[in-house]
Amino acid sequence: MAAMGEALHAHCAVLFPICRSITGPGLRETLRYVGARIPLEIHEVPSGTPVLDWTVPREWVPRSAWIRRLDGTTVVDFAEHNLHLLQYSHAMDAVVPLAELQRHLHSIPEQPELVPYRTAYYSDGWGFCLPHRLRESLGDEAYRVHIDAELKEGSLSYGECLLPGESEAEVLVSIHSCHPSLANDNLSGIALGLELARALSARRRRLSWRFLFLPGTIGSLAWLARNRDGVGRVAYGLVLTCLGDGGPITYKASRRGDAPIDRIAAHVLRHESPENRLLPFSPYGYDERQYCSPGFDLPVGCLMRSPNGTFPEYHSSADNLDFVRPEHLARSFAALASIADVIEEDRLLASTSPYGEPQLGRRGLYAPIGGTGPAAAGRGYGQMALLWVLNLADGRHSLLDMAERADLSFAEIRNAAAAAEAAGLLVTASPIADGVTVQDSAPKPRKARP
Amino acid sequence: MAAMGEALHAHCAVLFPICRSITGPGLRETLRYVGARIPLEIHEVPSGTPVLDWTVPREWVPRSAWIRRLDGTTVVDFAEHNLHLLQYSHAMDAVVPLAELQRHLHSIPEQPELVPYRTAYYSDGWGFCLPHRLRESLGDEAYRVHIDAELKEGSLSYGECLLPGESEAEVLVSIHSCHPSLANDNLSGIALGLELARALSARRRRLSWRFLFLPGTIGSLAWLARNRDGVGRVAYGLVLTCLGDGGPITYKASRRGDAPIDRIAAHVLRHESPENRLLPFSPYGYDERQYCSPGFDLPVGCLMRSPNGTFPEYHSSADNLDFVRPEHLARSFAALASIADVIEEDRLLASTSPYGEPQLGRRGLYAPIGGTGPAAAGRGYGQMALLWVLNLADGRHSLLDMAERADLSFAEIRNAAAAAEAAGLLVTASPIADGVTVQDSAPKPRKARP
Amino acid sequence: MAAMGEALHAHCAVLFPICRSITGPGLRETLRYVGARIPLEIHEVPSGTPVLDWTVPREWVPRSAWIRRLDGTTVVDFAEHNLHLLQYSHAMDAVVPLAELQRHLHSIPEQPELVPYRTAYYSDGWGFCLPHRLRESLGDEAYRVHIDAELKEGSLSYGECLLPGESEAEVLVSIHSCHPSLANDNLSGIALGLELARALSARRRRLSWRFLFLPGTIGSLAWLARNRDGVGRVAYGLVLTCLGDGGPITYKASRRGDAPIDRIAAHVLRHESPENRLLPFSPYGYDERQYCSPGFDLPVGCLMRSPNGTFPEYHSSADNLDFVRPEHLARSFAALASIADVIEEDRLLASTSPYGEPQLGRRGLYAPIGGTGPAAAGRGYGQMALLWVLNLADGRHSLLDMAERADLSFAEIRNAAAAAEAAGLLVTASPIADGVTVQDSAPKPRKARP
Repeated sequence: MAAMGEALHAHCAVLFPICRSITGPGLRETLRYVGARIPLEIHEVPSGTPVLDWTVPREWVPRSAWIRRLDGTTVVDFAEHNLHLLQYSHAMDAVVPLAELQRHLHSIPEQPELVPYRTAYYSDGWGFCLPHRLRESLGDEAYRVHIDAELKEGSLSYGECLLPGESEAEVLVSIHSCHPSLANDNLSGIALGLELARALSARRRRLSWRFLFLPGTIGSLAWLARNRDGVGRVAYGLVLTCLGDGGPITYKASRRGDAPIDRIAAHVLRHESPENRLLPFSPYGYDERQYCSPGFDLPVGCLMRSPNGTFPEYHSSADNLDFVRPEHLARSFAALASIADVIEEDRLLASTSPYGEPQLGRRGLYAPIGGTGPAAAGRGYGQMALLWVLNLADGRHSLLDMAERADLSFAEIRNAAAAAEAAGLLVTASPIADGVTVQDSAPKPRKARP
Repeated sequence: MAAMGEALHAHCAVLFPICRSITGPGLRETLRYVGARIPLEIHEVPSGTPVLDWTVPREWVPRSAWIRRLDGTTVVDFAEHNLHLLQYSHAMDAVVPLAELQRHLHSIPEQPELVPYRTAYYSDGWGFCLPHRLRESLGDEAYRVHIDAELKEGSLSYGECLLPGESEAEVLVSIHSCHPSLANDNLSGIALGLELARALSARRRRLSWRFLFLPGTIGSLAWLARNRDGVGRVAYGLVLTCLGDGGPITYKASRRGDAPIDRIAAHVLRHESPENRLLPFSPYGYDERQYCSPGFDLPVGCLMRSPNGTFPEYHSSADNLDFVRPEHLARSFAALASIADVIEEDRLLASTSPYGEPQLGRRGLYAPIGGTGPAAAGRGYGQMALLWVLNLADGRHSLLDMAERADLSFAEIRNAAAAAEAAGLLVTASPIADGVTVQDSAPKPRKARP
Repeated sequence: MAAMGEALHAHCAVLFPICRSITGPGLRETLRYVGARIPLEIHEVPSGTPVLDWTVPREWVPRSAWIRRLDGTTVVDFAEHNLHLLQYSHAMDAVVPLAELQRHLHSIPEQPELVPYRTAYYSDGWGFCLPHRLRESLGDEAYRVHIDAELKEGSLSYGECLLPGESEAEVLVSIHSCHPSLANDNLSGIALGLELARALSARRRRLSWRFLFLPGTIGSLAWLARNRDGVGRVAYGLVLTCLGDGGPITYKASRRGDAPIDRIAAHVLRHESPENRLLPFSPYGYDERQYCSPGFDLPVGCLMRSPNGTFPEYHSSADNLDFVRPEHLARSFAALASIADVIEEDRLLASTSPYGEPQLGRRGLYAPIGGTGPAAAGRGYGQMALLWVLNLADGRHSLLDMAERADLSFAEIRNAAAAAEAAGLLVTASPIADGVTVQDSAPKPRKARP
């Protein structure tokens, strides 16, 4: 677990200096890093392409940007911190008085030492972000403003990693990858997604797993627009974000609220720690907004630690490599991996001896109930877990159903079931748990009567 | 709101001195007052008419009544307070000793200054009501008792105001109007019903509204008996009573418990004040007992402030014009009007852009989430309300569904929906919210197997 | 109630000295005692008979057993307490050193004065149980061990009492009767079962009642194996155990959790005392484990005071005739009898006057709501109970439904319904409450797909 934490943090550290945006070279460089580690198809969607209600914007290529006093001393320089330049600023080279400059500056009065993160994707403008203390120190003089940036007909890039499984049913893992030099939001998500894909690529998969590394909002809209007929295959989905801070592990439910992924995440988080949090769906946040729009209504939730806007480092220069910690990343990954385990391993079981209890003693499965200590630790399950599995194995209960009713972890129930299966007492009644369905295409909203 | 409070109290003040009963001239005078302000059909049901399990009683016409000492001094006089005479007392003129008189006197030992309200509709008797302190002061002498009252073959009167709407589905508002000189119970109900009808008569109505001003129990039984085949049109219903005291606004659910009116009243009361109360149905109270009898089982709840029997002024001379306050009446009316708004305006909506979120920025609908203050106040809704409306507009959610899921008021959601509709992002999927049905006639109870 | 308590305790006192086991003469003697008081068919199932996944073991006939020092002084003697001999010990006659003897001794270090109850039904061994203090006092010398006991091809015995009713639907009452000299677990269950059967045999029965007095686990498995095709008739079921201690009355639900018996027991216990407890099903405990195995899934719960393993006297010599008290037994019996009343008397009712409230005054059924004191006591119900019954009598509500919705006891609602029925206001719509079904055979688990 310590090694995993270090590996996750190392990914963040490599990617941190790159200036990503919703298009452009920094995003592509990030996708190349991911693609060097897992099989990743990189898609390019040309500027101007309509995607659902939106249009792919021009590609932004920032090169250099600074504000200097006329004596040549530097106020801020994009080369020092990616956040200094307002994203999607157009090119600029002029001397402006302080009053005009102020209209293009962004700072946080309540956090005077931090540089904020600001964007202007869909407006035409320019600007700089800087610490409020520095802004207040600016003398009433003229400043030279220089921005060497291009807004050109190019393309939006996103990366897609499909790990085919035995079933066409898919697990969608979506990670926004467009933020510059912000470690928790969302290098942590990129790191966890990358490592989960790597782990899954090395094992037998019951389900197909699809990982998307894409720019927020416009990226998921582009993927949805291009895969409209295939989204019915999505049986489970997770948006990964903000997974490196020290907050409790938090799951925000899908719009459906009772999708299998909602139940699985709730189960795993409850057993991981009583401090963990379950939030209901709300139409604000990350790309779950798009996946859960009414026309798609996909079973996609969001896994995170501290939600957007709820931690002081959010969208500022304080969301850096010190803020995300290896131990937090590792714990988040363990929870994510547990969710993946349930998705992969849940199934319906049937007892081969359903009439009366089977005699456990002659099969070496009988342990005194009091003795759940060392024996249970050795086997990975207690006697009560075995009794619950045998009692509920009627072909209608899945392993997760059993774990929930027994109030035991999925892992303990799974281990008990494996022991019973090895003793010939259980068979798989269905490899798919109830509630998981695969549709030919996205559900259609009810026809409107105008 | 202050003006409405004064207007409501003024109705009570005019009607207070009239001696109403379940039949007779006081009831008719009250109906004439209402009929002078809203379109009201006055029905007369002859004495002796069978109405369901009951029979319309004789009409009671009290003229004068008093108890005097033989020296001519007055003990009590009906001319001074309507409550002094037991309702439905027959005529009487006799000198009786104190011991016999006592058997015909009613007082409240715990509230020795108050005159109680007592009735004897369905028994044959006479009596007087007086303060317990006065009763205890009576000397052991003979008294002259005089009652000039008639019990004659006449009729029971009730008033019916139908405001037709675009749909045949009806909203039933029932108000018992038989109590003499009791202000909260139920002149307050008469005043609110009258003003709600007046307000609705001036606007476009999606639903038909039927207001009944009738004597308690026997009046609603008579209406039900005469309209048995039409009650299936009742899609919502409210009994109005005790709306002028200072208690929390209280809604008692229909027998069904999950009728649309139950949900609407709960929503409005919860958003009006956290102090408000929701009570489950119980088969004791006002005319909801008849509407919710098992053969009819209509979706009729009861809106009130303090329920019957729960305030010390109840059914006594203390329930007077000082007890009901304009500000209480006005607040009750505002809640009632909000309920009427939801009934009239709830409907199913469908997004015209359901796949992914629509781009709000180019439609001028985008506001930063933090900025819900003045902007929201100006538009009547915050950005979250708009996001919820667009997310849930799948043709299956009504405005009320959206308000409940977003935990916002119906009014804010309605305003956000209006803005989205104006921008072409929404259409009405169905003008009728789910759960509202109109039947050809009353539901039949399951046939009994004797 | 006091007399019933004494009678129940007297049964325990007679049966206490007998050394029962899962087979053998002590079990047969116990069944003969029961059979002398209620009609009981005694079944014998030969050793070696396969019963579901198990096999009927050999019959155990213990005659004498002791440990003596070589100087002839006695350490323990089976003749002094049945618990001294490990159940199913084989014959033995040898002199053994202390070290070897220790491997065959059982005691409770935490309760050094008590003799534990231990069994070895399905292993081949011998042993003695004794107070830990005595065990610790044993000198390092040799001991003579003597066990005169036979393990022979014989049979397993159980007793079955069927009280036929008007319906084929059955109530199964199962009582394990295999424990030696343990008063609460389970002479209390035997005593209550016997007296309930006696009481029911003297009354008209809507349902058929089947009482089983059998050895735990293997006995219920044997009955299930021999009655596999008939278990679909079981509409309600109760396991009776540990009913003589002072703990709150406790009901452990059936595996279904929402079977009629679960609802009935919950209702009765809640009204009996707020201290009573409802436990969810778990696959550990008594014979409900077999009845609720997935192939049968019968609606069988467990009625008790303190559950197995939760009281310090459990499975030790402290579970004696002083531990079970007549007053506890009597209160348990009253609750059991109330459950039986609901099972027998619940039914669907329909009003003969469902449109509007019937006029109670002319039928002598009207009482002021305030006056629920002495009048209600005299009639056995209050006015609210009568109003609820009439309001809910729509052919779809049973007496229990009414009691639950009114939050009144079943008995009060039943009494009010009887009064309304006597006045011609109610008829029985169905003699069977909803949710009670009789199947041709046991439900089959869903077919497994291997």
